[in-house]
Amino acid sequence: MAVIKIRIDFDGDRYIGHGRIQLLELIGQHGSIAKAAKAMDMSYKRAWYLMDEFNSMFADPLIERQHGGKGGGAAKLTPFGADLVRQYRDMEAKALSVFAKPLAAVEKHLAPKEAVNPKPAKKAGQSART
Amino acid sequence: MAVIKIRIDFDGDRYIGHGRIQLLELIGQHGSIAKAAKAMDMSYKRAWYLMDEFNSMFADPLIERQHGGKGGGAAKLTPFGADLVRQYRDMEAKALSVFAKPLAAVEKHLAPKEAVNPKPAKKAGQSART
Repeated sequence: MAVIKIRIDFDGDRYIGHGRIQLLELIGQHGSIAKAAKAMDMSYKRAWYLMDEFNSMFADPLIERQHGGKGGGAAKLTPFGADLVRQYRDMEAKALSVFAKPLAAVEKHLAPKEAVNPKPAKKAGQSART
Repeated sequence: MAVIKIRIDFDGDRYIGHGRIQLLELIGQHGSIAKAAKAMDMSYKRAWYLMDEFNSMFADPLIERQHGGKGGGAAKLTPFGADLVRQYRDMEAKALSVFAKPLAAVEKHLAPKEAVNPKPAKKAGQSART
């Protein structure tokens, strides 16, 4: 089944994407940037920078950090952060229902799986039709 | 103003994304992979591989190539390829209208640009509220 991911580009290089939302969501679930980073198989440093960039897009903070303790201390979503996750997930879900028809139409054209994914020897069906 | 980009993930690593559609669209416009690659500031080799991967997702070809000539010969979209571009662009346009409300809500929270982008300052109207 197809999955739709949405990326929203604002001016400059400010954007909201699937990865950022996932990180934010995981911080909310784990209560910690370090644990969220681990869950995404990402370094703490990278997660921290990602969140810092994401956070600085907005006038209001997305997360609240309690410093101290090992692993960088606890972190939780602000009401605005939690709301942003919810809005984004709602948009994704809605996109799937709004676009169900064109998606199904495209899916009909996909090559049979066997023809595409046998790793050794990429038997591409693109010449095909014969 | 915000822009929405859509990525559709099928099974495995088969997907339709903004870059692939743009490349396909440019091939249609320029009638050549080499020219489309140039327009995207991409090497011919990379464009060729991208198209090959994209093409092999489907049972029907997205482009038709006429070999020979310099620059790799001419290429044009098949009716299916042209239709895929159209469907994707329609989805993007529809997403913008369907999500106008949540997008506007999020935009209200963007930081004033000066605070984020103290580069050469591109005065956009998104800070507002004052």
